Amino acid sequence: MFDVNAIRADFPILSRQVNGKPLVYLDNGASAQKPQVVIDAITQAYSQEYANVHRGLHYLSNLATDKYEAVRGTIARFLNAGSEDEIVMNSGTTEGINMVAYAWAMPHLQAGDEIVLSVMEHHANIVPWHFLRERMGVVLKWVEVEADGSLDPQRVIEAMGPKTKLVAVTQMSNVLGTIVDVKTICAAARARGVASLIDGSQSAVHMPVDVQDIGCDFFAITGHKLYGPSGSGAIYCRAERLAEMRPFMGGGDMIREVTRDTVIYNDPPMKFEAGTPGIVQMIGLGVALDYMTGIGMQAIHEREMQLTAYASDRLKGLNWLNVQGNAPGKGGIFSFTLDGAAHAHDISTILDKKGVAVRAGHHCAGPLMETLGITASCRASFAMYNTEAEVDVLIEALELAHDLFA
Amino acid sequence: MFDVNAIRADFPILSRQVNGKPLVYLDNGASAQKPQVVIDAITQAYSQEYANVHRGLHYLSNLATDKYEAVRGTIARFLNAGSEDEIVMNSGTTEGINMVAYAWAMPHLQAGDEIVLSVMEHHANIVPWHFLRERMGVVLKWVEVEADGSLDPQRVIEAMGPKTKLVAVTQMSNVLGTIVDVKTICAAARARGVASLIDGSQSAVHMPVDVQDIGCDFFAITGHKLYGPSGSGAIYCRAERLAEMRPFMGGGDMIREVTRDTVIYNDPPMKFEAGTPGIVQMIGLGVALDYMTGIGMQAIHEREMQLTAYASDRLKGLNWLNVQGNAPGKGGIFSFTLDGAAHAHDISTILDKKGVAVRAGHHCAGPLMETLGITASCRASFAMYNTEAEVDVLIEALELAHDLFA
Repeated sequence: MFDVNAIRADFPILSRQVNGKPLVYLDNGASAQKPQVVIDAITQAYSQEYANVHRGLHYLSNLATDKYEAVRGTIARFLNAGSEDEIVMNSGTTEGINMVAYAWAMPHLQAGDEIVLSVMEHHANIVPWHFLRERMGVVLKWVEVEADGSLDPQRVIEAMGPKTKLVAVTQMSNVLGTIVDVKTICAAARARGVASLIDGSQSAVHMPVDVQDIGCDFFAITGHKLYGPSGSGAIYCRAERLAEMRPFMGGGDMIREVTRDTVIYNDPPMKFEAGTPGIVQMIGLGVALDYMTGIGMQAIHEREMQLTAYASDRLKGLNWLNVQGNAPGKGGIFSFTLDGAAHAHDISTILDKKGVAVRAGHHCAGPLMETLGITASCRASFAMYNTEAEVDVLIEALELAHDLFA
Repeated sequence: MFDVNAIRADFPILSRQVNGKPLVYLDNGASAQKPQVVIDAITQAYSQEYANVHRGLHYLSNLATDKYEAVRGTIARFLNAGSEDEIVMNSGTTEGINMVAYAWAMPHLQAGDEIVLSVMEHHANIVPWHFLRERMGVVLKWVEVEADGSLDPQRVIEAMGPKTKLVAVTQMSNVLGTIVDVKTICAAARARGVASLIDGSQSAVHMPVDVQDIGCDFFAITGHKLYGPSGSGAIYCRAERLAEMRPFMGGGDMIREVTRDTVIYNDPPMKFEAGTPGIVQMIGLGVALDYMTGIGMQAIHEREMQLTAYASDRLKGLNWLNVQGNAPGKGGIFSFTLDGAAHAHDISTILDKKGVAVRAGHHCAGPLMETLGITASCRASFAMYNTEAEVDVLIEALELAHDLFA
């Protein structure tokens, strides 16, 4: 039984006030709050169990190494990877996608080769590919979204031509909440010999993920959105792709031997983890994933879809409010603008006075904002700890904002 | 007045036992322990003040942004940078040096150009340059250390030829403890139009650093060695060099505008900070640096040199023990081997039984180990919280190891 009040009690920040009002935290698409077990794990690590990992032979180093390396298995299970050797631990999706750009795409693509992207990608899944356009003459092919914000997998598949080397799409839009049928896209890509990268930053927070079922080559996640520490994350890389990749960053741990004239690199995944990793934040991420799977990803998904339906209904009741995207099955991310000239930043400031934290701006999705014909929107993004009562507070605050700016 | 007992009391882990013995933590060159104020700052951030930074307009986001961005100034003051806009925040020295390799060196160097390195560099300051050798035909020129482990700046200067574009050296060897006269090297480099990168991973922990006085172009530091959280760090980049650099990683925050066909990048330093940063670990690093400067870097340096002299004397009393490196003014890092066949790993295991944490291995310094003619050594590396009594415990444990393996 999903007990939202018990879950809320696990997150200390949720009982605080902001501007004299109870915090209503609806900025989860930007970053999620942390349960006490994650905070405790960090404290425990630094207070009693801290040392550098991998090369120490003393007690604390072995302890930290065991705890750190166990997280690789936790992530592999969370994503249902075939092997934990397919998990590269890093600081988040941005680093993960940049690694694929530098380590796989740059040596494999040439001028005129194409990368297929949807217009609703986050900048983390756009700018690394712009680097290849700017530096190498790679061509970016953009796939439009439908009027309701859904992404038709057939459009993505039709965009793949003989020069397409990579398709890189999100599984869940951070602006529209759209869920993408990435399995169909990846199957088509695979049949054409096209590599596939899925940005799982948002989706992995809200639904079960199975990278083997999806059939992707790369799947990137971000720890701080998964109720884990800032600066944690990972990317699943199919073993065959890992074998094709040159190193990204160089340093300790990713080598087997270094001489003046030669380097012998370590085997994957270590080959792609240079230097001292984010030891304690990765340990914290492991605890966060265990916390989520303890509740159950399917249970989280179902509860959030319930809350999303409630929020959707209530927002529809505001006839001066325009929600961007209403794709069937969309998740709990609502970006919106208000009729009239009120700027998203002003709206969010009013909401903040009522304790409601939403984001305002371009949401790191420039091409989508261009497509939507807006420069900024407000975004309320939900997590497993949000409630219908909080939706009501949001609605009241929006009504206030509308009254003020009408 | 430097009060080592008061300082020790600030580090909770130092009162724990290991294998039934009080912990004697001498693996500080790998990573330092954390004072309670740093742990408390992390707890406070996650429990009460957490949100993503930069683009939020709500209370928590503004609070987190203010705290996070204040650290840039703290780091600038710690290094005496001319401007905080010359500080790029990152996950540590490995990422910092890789950024210089990818963002500055790769677009500026060509086949046959030279990079001058000392043989005592850490792999973090070697492997990124090997990438340029492997991928572009750049030539690595190695400068020998003297018999006592010191690095003669004249040798470095003489190694710079007309094709030299960069000199990259450590300010303090992580194996030998050697302190390098980087100021003389950087002045000569500058006079020749050669860029200079200083690896400050070790030195910044133990002595006052003034990047303007040193006159370097790049100075990299690692937060987890500076009593800060894992996954924190920064690199000072002289403004003129920042202006010459293309972006390293792409994603949110580092852009001003992204369309389907174009990107306009943000100004430095933001241009080099892609995606959600390590928010809380950077806040923790700020607290750690304040903790250090509260004690005083000169006071720390003087106290550590006192302790280093004591350790040096005591180790010299063991005539079956060979310390690698005794350069004048060397810092508190002692790498050593024992006469006879005892392997470094076995020694460290014996020490661990006595609660003494040292490192054993190649210390991420392949070329130096080759130069020294050894494959592994033990390393005892000191921090401001270590004591003469701990040196005595180390000596006793070494005597035991010697007896066991003799």
